Amino acid sequence: MPVGNYQAAISTNKLVFISGQLPFKDGKLIYCGQLGKELTTEEGRQAAKMCALNILSHIANLTPLPKLKKIIKIEGFINSHPTFTEHADVLNGASDLLAGVLGEKAGHIRSVLGCSSLPMGASVEISAIVELE
Amino acid sequence: MPVGNYQAAISTNKLVFISGQLPFKDGKLIYCGQLGKELTTEEGRQAAKMCALNILSHIANLTPLPKLKKIIKIEGFINSHPTFTEHADVLNGASDLLAGVLGEKAGHIRSVLGCSSLPMGASVEISAIVELE
Amino acid sequence: MPVGNYQAAISTNKLVFISGQLPFKDGKLIYCGQLGKELTTEEGRQAAKMCALNILSHIANLTPLPKLKKIIKIEGFINSHPTFTEHADVLNGASDLLAGVLGEKAGHIRSVLGCSSLPMGASVEISAIVELE
Repeated sequence: MPVGNYQAAISTNKLVFISGQLPFKDGKLIYCGQLGKELTTEEGRQAAKMCALNILSHIANLTPLPKLKKIIKIEGFINSHPTFTEHADVLNGASDLLAGVLGEKAGHIRSVLGCSSLPMGASVEISAIVELE
Repeated sequence: MPVGNYQAAISTNKLVFISGQLPFKDGKLIYCGQLGKELTTEEGRQAAKMCALNILSHIANLTPLPKLKKIIKIEGFINSHPTFTEHADVLNGASDLLAGVLGEKAGHIRSVLGCSSLPMGASVEISAIVELE
Repeated sequence: MPVGNYQAAISTNKLVFISGQLPFKDGKLIYCGQLGKELTTEEGRQAAKMCALNILSHIANLTPLPKLKKIIKIEGFINSHPTFTEHADVLNGASDLLAGVLGEKAGHIRSVLGCSSLPMGASVEISAIVELE
């Protein structure tokens, strides 16, 4: 749900770039707050899974999913306390969802980092780059 | 103004990648400090606008602007206090500037996140990927 | 060392995307902690250098280094205290290593930002996009 002069997804040649997705479910932001303080790692995983579902939804809006060749990259931004260290576990919520839905086409590289804050107090944000057939 | 062994912009095929731009104006960093504590969201918007102008300047150094096909992606890094939530409003300062200057060619995807700190105490940093005709 | 459903490097056409690399040396994370509080800028530079070596290692696993055309982009994530401002100096540890090893092929654009935390308490994480001949 872009709230400005930008788009959810843009394609160029065979690549599709997808805006950072927040864990919106039915228009409502779920699992708000900071990992390592207000949320458990398992809650963060659920938030990351929801972001990944929203990424898949934007891809499907642009092209039939069978035309997806592979996920190239996801980047995970984790709203987290300075003492938090389980970023990889949180982003696994997205990587595992993609692997479950897409199988071998899910094979991506990724970065994950801790943020001092995220838009609207979200706990997780994930962007993606995808390749089409 | 790269201060190391790197470049401001690199092109490969039709894509141009632009280094993270700080809100430099006439060689001076403007609007330093942390959003949600030392700076207002409106000041952050002005900083983001300045970053976007510097992005356009680097594109223009590389190629005449009419050869720009579209902005693919911008990534906004906001120096922000843990309680800050208006990241989207800040980055709109860049998205709106691009839309005003480039019209339909401005249509980009984006990510925006809160940083615990930024180079030289800057309030905002923005990187970009651009497609040429 | 991916610890989940993802890969260290993925190529598409002539581009190679590399997952965010931590300063692992012989399987052990070195220079853990926060810049501006627990670590000096010089220690951060050494951590960034180690990340860059790991990036080169992943490229070499995928393709002989002479087939590398150039480094397009590196993105540096610095685990840092809100008062830290020397992000560019830290990332120069990576840019200088790449320039020393690759010469003109090292020429990249980059972004660098301060993170509230990083996976496993790492001080630095660096991702990369590389172009092949």
